[in-house]
Amino acid sequence: MIERLAIVGLGLIGGSLASALKERGAVGEVVATGRREASLRKGLELGVIDRWTLDLAEAVRGADVVVIATPTQVAEKVLRELAPLLDERTVVTDVASVKGNLLRAAQAVFGEPPPNLVLGHPIAGSEQSGVEAARAELFVDHRVILTPLANTAPQALNTIEQMWTAAGAEVSCMDVAEHDAVLAATSHLPHVLAYALVDALARDGSASEIFRYAAGGFRDFTRIASSDPQMWHDIVLANRDAVLDRMDLFSANLARLREAIAAGDGEAIKATFESAKMARDQHFLTQYKGGKH
Amino acid sequence: MIERLAIVGLGLIGGSLASALKERGAVGEVVATGRREASLRKGLELGVIDRWTLDLAEAVRGADVVVIATPTQVAEKVLRELAPLLDERTVVTDVASVKGNLLRAAQAVFGEPPPNLVLGHPIAGSEQSGVEAARAELFVDHRVILTPLANTAPQALNTIEQMWTAAGAEVSCMDVAEHDAVLAATSHLPHVLAYALVDALARDGSASEIFRYAAGGFRDFTRIASSDPQMWHDIVLANRDAVLDRMDLFSANLARLREAIAAGDGEAIKATFESAKMARDQHFLTQYKGGKH
Repeated sequence: MIERLAIVGLGLIGGSLASALKERGAVGEVVATGRREASLRKGLELGVIDRWTLDLAEAVRGADVVVIATPTQVAEKVLRELAPLLDERTVVTDVASVKGNLLRAAQAVFGEPPPNLVLGHPIAGSEQSGVEAARAELFVDHRVILTPLANTAPQALNTIEQMWTAAGAEVSCMDVAEHDAVLAATSHLPHVLAYALVDALARDGSASEIFRYAAGGFRDFTRIASSDPQMWHDIVLANRDAVLDRMDLFSANLARLREAIAAGDGEAIKATFESAKMARDQHFLTQYKGGKH
Repeated sequence: MIERLAIVGLGLIGGSLASALKERGAVGEVVATGRREASLRKGLELGVIDRWTLDLAEAVRGADVVVIATPTQVAEKVLRELAPLLDERTVVTDVASVKGNLLRAAQAVFGEPPPNLVLGHPIAGSEQSGVEAARAELFVDHRVILTPLANTAPQALNTIEQMWTAAGAEVSCMDVAEHDAVLAATSHLPHVLAYALVDALARDGSASEIFRYAAGGFRDFTRIASSDPQMWHDIVLANRDAVLDRMDLFSANLARLREAIAAGDGEAIKATFESAKMARDQHFLTQYKGGKH
């Protein structure tokens, strides 16, 4: 049970977390702060939070847990502003998609990151955004990755783990570099590819003619290209090295496949397609039996 | 009304077309032939067809319309075998995903392609295959592209257009090269990218760890990598030049985006993401209002 939870940045993720914890009786009071007063007012109106303030110091005063739920690039700044405001018992966590940049920011601010800082990432979201889209079930059966450091206090880690478990999520831990590499592969790279594909076709001039004949496969494949450009701009820059590494891995494999197609090397083409189908089916058909996969 | 329809290759597409036409009373008798006796037996058992034979000559004798519904590479061969068997009044069409290779096959077989040959492509399908998966509604509200030539008989074109309209599809015409270019962009390239991505991650060794943290976006983005490898092998080889052209367009755009990310050029990154989101939203949000897009 968290007596007082402070949320910095009240959007889809922060709002959904607050709703989930309130619905399950896992939190006493929820205070929110942020730059957009309209979001804070809306959150109060929807019953997602109990009160709000535009003043960061006031929001975090006496909080057991502070959740930084702003966009990635703003989170670095919030961490800096929070530093002088925290007392020792307050546990701080975040929800950003990249962890390495925040770890570097914490090192710049604190020297050694404080034992009560537990960086984390709920792997959940939606093409929608804003507190209006918040829902208490957003994290149910979704994974949350926490990235504790060697000096992280076990009690702090435990608090954040229980918070996410109470929200319905499945929590696991890994180190910061591993998190950023895994997410670069499974999330950041696919977004980059989807954006690059749709942009390439749009630039080619015949976009409307092309899209007119696009069927369901194309619609699914490019759905993530409808995600928020500012948010994804932040993410690829925050995780730049890992994203570039995965882009290069992909491009090298695509170049190999291109050579096989150009050479009419049917065996190599089929081997690539079969390996991909097998890897995907093996994972998703096992994990999501019966569901749409 | 087609008095007698012959289907060569009874799978998902041929079976669904037969079902649709029978259900709407748009066909008298449906005869099927193919290499797999089990599929033909199954089709009869399911009531999808009226009779079957393993003999191509017997199947097409007296048919008003012959639909070649085999895999892409087999369709070229079937066209060759059909040539001596057709009488002048029989209209021949097909359902393959690529049209250029069949046009070249027709030129090789007939010199000038016959006026009663109308190449076509229903843009519909499923990850499932086989006549067991056939359903009469498969083509409803889906597009069918026909690619008539200068010498195509208007009456033949009309017959095939009415056939697809009766099956619930929306028919349009374009020339062979345009069809293959549009499909390379909207269908063949996305499949190649999905296969290349999943294969790259699988090859990288940590596939199961990576897939374990893959969320919904990745699942949607890679769904088409679960498609039939043999079928897609046939398609990319049949449409090789157009596929290579679109792969190169995509790779050049990805390389441009890579440079922007490496250079930390936020404006260029955001411009690409915004252009993609706008192009996709503009099309799909208009076309599919209210539905999952």
